[in-house]
Amino acid sequence: MNSIANIIEPRLLLHKEKCLRNIRRMVEKAKINKVQLRPHFKTHQSKEIAEWFRSENVKCATVSSIKMATYFAEAGWDDITVAFPINVLEYERINRLAKRIQLNLIAVGTEGIKALLTVLKYPVNIFIKIDVGYGRTGVLPYHIKEIDSILALIASSDLLYFSGFLSHAGHSYNCRSQEEIIQLHFETIQTISLVADIYRLRYPELLISVGDTPTCSVADDFSMVDEIRPGNFVFYDLTQANIGSNAKSDIAIALACPLVAKHPDRNEVVLYGGGVHFSKDALVLNNGLKIYGELVWLTENDWSEPVEGCYIKSISQEHGILKLTEAVFNQVKVGDVLAILPVHSCMTANLMNGYTILQGGNAEYFNFKREYFLG
Amino acid sequence: MNSIANIIEPRLLLHKEKCLRNIRRMVEKAKINKVQLRPHFKTHQSKEIAEWFRSENVKCATVSSIKMATYFAEAGWDDITVAFPINVLEYERINRLAKRIQLNLIAVGTEGIKALLTVLKYPVNIFIKIDVGYGRTGVLPYHIKEIDSILALIASSDLLYFSGFLSHAGHSYNCRSQEEIIQLHFETIQTISLVADIYRLRYPELLISVGDTPTCSVADDFSMVDEIRPGNFVFYDLTQANIGSNAKSDIAIALACPLVAKHPDRNEVVLYGGGVHFSKDALVLNNGLKIYGELVWLTENDWSEPVEGCYIKSISQEHGILKLTEAVFNQVKVGDVLAILPVHSCMTANLMNGYTILQGGNAEYFNFKREYFLG
Repeated sequence: MNSIANIIEPRLLLHKEKCLRNIRRMVEKAKINKVQLRPHFKTHQSKEIAEWFRSENVKCATVSSIKMATYFAEAGWDDITVAFPINVLEYERINRLAKRIQLNLIAVGTEGIKALLTVLKYPVNIFIKIDVGYGRTGVLPYHIKEIDSILALIASSDLLYFSGFLSHAGHSYNCRSQEEIIQLHFETIQTISLVADIYRLRYPELLISVGDTPTCSVADDFSMVDEIRPGNFVFYDLTQANIGSNAKSDIAIALACPLVAKHPDRNEVVLYGGGVHFSKDALVLNNGLKIYGELVWLTENDWSEPVEGCYIKSISQEHGILKLTEAVFNQVKVGDVLAILPVHSCMTANLMNGYTILQGGNAEYFNFKREYFLG
Repeated sequence: MNSIANIIEPRLLLHKEKCLRNIRRMVEKAKINKVQLRPHFKTHQSKEIAEWFRSENVKCATVSSIKMATYFAEAGWDDITVAFPINVLEYERINRLAKRIQLNLIAVGTEGIKALLTVLKYPVNIFIKIDVGYGRTGVLPYHIKEIDSILALIASSDLLYFSGFLSHAGHSYNCRSQEEIIQLHFETIQTISLVADIYRLRYPELLISVGDTPTCSVADDFSMVDEIRPGNFVFYDLTQANIGSNAKSDIAIALACPLVAKHPDRNEVVLYGGGVHFSKDALVLNNGLKIYGELVWLTENDWSEPVEGCYIKSISQEHGILKLTEAVFNQVKVGDVLAILPVHSCMTANLMNGYTILQGGNAEYFNFKREYFLG
């Protein structure tokens, strides 16, 4: 039997029960609202975890690159949305995918679609992305002429099908309460719905697809949309907890880090766990404190709530400096393995490349990006 | 012949000539000062680039983990310092390495050494790390009693040899001018020398090892030390340029990113190149502007100086939002590949896992972390 007692270097622990609970809660919410759940797989990037979704009857996925789409297509996912502007340079990969699965791409302007038209060989669905206020990318909701131009390009091709409108309210990450999230949820859904209403007569089957973990976690009413695409909720993290998306007890991953040095003069310890494990993403708490993770006590199968006053205060390539209370400082020693809840689970999972799954006293490690990475 | 014209996804370009120039400049400085150059390989993490050092007669290396030491030992490096507190949980790997190469470990307190003593089977050299003001880890210079305790533990074992004192003046990253760097250089060298002087009679062969890219790049006088261990200088980056370590024309890597969307209303374009490529490390310029990279114009073999007013303003998992001047905005189109100088080359190289080496019109890609990653 594998065990966390065998850990000798930074390992990303995955609490299977918490993860399944997060998945089931979102599946249930989608079912109640009669919307399709198309989870974003960029957070976990793992075909094994994708199977946990499949067991809950989830049949379609969102990804953030053509490469990631290829990885999941090879794992049997045959209806995938690439929620990233079309990168036409990858047209050969797009054609290989489009031949094999139902591939949904997003248009954020006419240029990408024009370029795609010249090289596409198999049918793909196109969502038009609307910028509902995040300001990253997408067509502005009042740029009706641009939407019309994209639709005209789509109509000009036998291989392109217009699926509907898609948005990502990424500015929900600036919210600091559930009330703020719910208000933003309604505002952004109203924005995309107004655009959709203009085209509904011409395209009666058009879909509205929205998705970000804060609104999908907090809001209950999705009656105006057809599809939700949250991703981070599969693990959650301290940033999401700070926004109000989840309780800290919902966080399903923790980084196990060997303790390598103690500094009694400042109640700090050095962990083997730095920027190449956690990422350099920091969380600035409402009191102004900047942290890179919070300590939890590890047990054979589980971990505790965060330990008050114990957090990663700074990070370099392999070092994490963990600030402790005096009482906790006196409880730990060099050679211990401490577990840290991450600030941003997507970035941490991407760096760690594998999971140690805690379940029933077993701790099995698997390396999820092997094929993908070599590809 | 491979070419940058074949790039279809984010690729880390490595300008071989600039890189060799950076290496040779540091080799020359070490030679003039009669100090040993033991470059830190954590920046490039590549045995191919390590060979470029070997061609310049560099025979020893610094790394930041036992795993990295193992990778370079397998590539023929037989004198390696692991500049990270001893992680005794990895004792089996330590023994395998110590059997095979001259392994130098660092002690930051008595606990790590005590634990190592119980499991070590082959000889290793020990440096005592002195905290010269960075405040990350190491023994404080006035904790003579602790240094004595570590030395007593070393003396108690037939397998441990005391090599000397080592420091890392990481607080040089807070400097904002060459004058500040030089002042810090002398202060920190004086600190470690004072400690060394106490023990020189007892250990006449003890070495003083220092190293960080800012001081090693800017200072000229290393007469008081025996060894320097800079790492980042092999590539440099915008952070180092902002500190004053290098000119921007010395930066030897750039991330090539496909342009996937244009937003004329705000002169911004979306690049396929985000936090999983660059990392989320940001640079706050002296005028308060926070950036994630600067645009350079790419030619077949080379790139330009940074284009004034064109920088990555925000980043998410796969998206980079590049702010442009109106003139530059009108010159670029969807499907172009733009090159960006990174803010922190160590983090970017760690994420990208490979290099496209530009030399003589050729652009050869190799994946440097394959074995390492699978290990």
